[in-house]
Amino acid sequence: MASLTLDQANRIATAALAKGRELSLKPLCVAVLDAGGHLIALQREDGASNLRPQIAMGKASSALGLGVSSRVIGEMAAERPTFIASLAGLADAAIVPAAGGIIVYKAGEVIGAVGVTGDTSDNDETCALAGVETLELD
Amino acid sequence: MASLTLDQANRIATAALAKGRELSLKPLCVAVLDAGGHLIALQREDGASNLRPQIAMGKASSALGLGVSSRVIGEMAAERPTFIASLAGLADAAIVPAAGGIIVYKAGEVIGAVGVTGDTSDNDETCALAGVETLELD
Amino acid sequence: MASLTLDQANRIATAALAKGRELSLKPLCVAVLDAGGHLIALQREDGASNLRPQIAMGKASSALGLGVSSRVIGEMAAERPTFIASLAGLADAAIVPAAGGIIVYKAGEVIGAVGVTGDTSDNDETCALAGVETLELD
Amino acid sequence: MASLTLDQANRIATAALAKGRELSLKPLCVAVLDAGGHLIALQREDGASNLRPQIAMGKASSALGLGVSSRVIGEMAAERPTFIASLAGLADAAIVPAAGGIIVYKAGEVIGAVGVTGDTSDNDETCALAGVETLELD
Repeated sequence: MASLTLDQANRIATAALAKGRELSLKPLCVAVLDAGGHLIALQREDGASNLRPQIAMGKASSALGLGVSSRVIGEMAAERPTFIASLAGLADAAIVPAAGGIIVYKAGEVIGAVGVTGDTSDNDETCALAGVETLELD
Repeated sequence: MASLTLDQANRIATAALAKGRELSLKPLCVAVLDAGGHLIALQREDGASNLRPQIAMGKASSALGLGVSSRVIGEMAAERPTFIASLAGLADAAIVPAAGGIIVYKAGEVIGAVGVTGDTSDNDETCALAGVETLELD
Repeated sequence: MASLTLDQANRIATAALAKGRELSLKPLCVAVLDAGGHLIALQREDGASNLRPQIAMGKASSALGLGVSSRVIGEMAAERPTFIASLAGLADAAIVPAAGGIIVYKAGEVIGAVGVTGDTSDNDETCALAGVETLELD
Repeated sequence: MASLTLDQANRIATAALAKGRELSLKPLCVAVLDAGGHLIALQREDGASNLRPQIAMGKASSALGLGVSSRVIGEMAAERPTFIASLAGLADAAIVPAAGGIIVYKAGEVIGAVGVTGDTSDNDETCALAGVETLELD
């Protein structure tokens, strides 16, 4: 399966956390999944709370599940709350309707996803994007 | 229990996807269930996201569960959100309150259901109806 | 993600069921998953019982989860029953320790999996293999 | 609660995987948990199958849950299979009765756990131990 490699996933996680330190954000957790939604790499900073791994994975998994960023899922949840709530019963992982989960594409193909949590959703997403940008994918 | 056959289910799925291509919709997934809510046939187009099979099955299953189309369940959810939300705890599959899931009848008898997802709910339903119309049931 | 396409998945399912008819087997159900374990196509023959879709998906998903055929998982279950039983609590889909679930590779890369159920495990596997052989993958 | 830091967890994971490469083992997955059983770091090598993250986490979590290595849990499962099986209903994560999950102590205090999976249980444990040894804990 064409997918992010472990080396790429580690680089994404490291870069996402570096962005968080650069911006003096709260302790973060970053999860990197393959295109099928399975974990490749995860890092949780000291002080990030217990549920952060599941939230980070959930943001990334939600993005893969619906084919849009978790920011867009958050917008869908505001417009159609019962529809998004109903998906909780369908998905193996939770649907997390908040920014910070983004799909990683290479040449238009899904190759994985990144989820970040710990600070505001907007800041989480900034770090996720910084992580992916280190790969310089086309 | 009178039910759609596999041959009929495959024809429904093929016709529903053909309608989606005719309308240039996003990649779709279509599920065809028997009257008991069990899967007969499913097809997911290339590029449709990971959770689409569950959503397609959920729309069809919800329709069978409540005896109305998933469009009507969406209307019920707008009027009585806590009632529809409460059903999530009852149903094996989730209740999906959005158009695209329809019951298939023959001579007034339920013989199965179809669920389509991937584009807007209205477009999904158009494809589900196109699928069923190929059968020319009385 | 490099994966089986819907066209390939439909061809696998059709060929697997044709093999079952050729051998006069009981009614079968065949599921074709992508490398991430998500359903691409499923067909259940008339008369195959209600739980067959989940068993077919479970065989294929188990193979992907552990990286071996479900026949090998059956052998592992005979040697280490509590270990395999313990995985039921880990996997989103069930672990099905019986032949009939095989991984599909292309050039050494996992691109999906097939699960067949309905007759004996050996016959199920024969049909799964017949399905994959139609693709003439290298 | 005294706990492994992210820096320590990353070092453990990197060293465990390096040991696997040194021994030419199959692709591995390593999970490092804090004393509360929550994930700090995870790495899954390219080619390790889909369920490996859950198995790695399950081995480490089982060790923390019962206060012994997952090797000992495997021995308990051989002697008292129904007792170990009953724990599946109690634990959030599964109980995985196979070597490869070890508790990390510092000055007699539990500070986390490591789980490795992908090769034989014995080899998995060798890598988990190699990971912890890099920390030179007293």
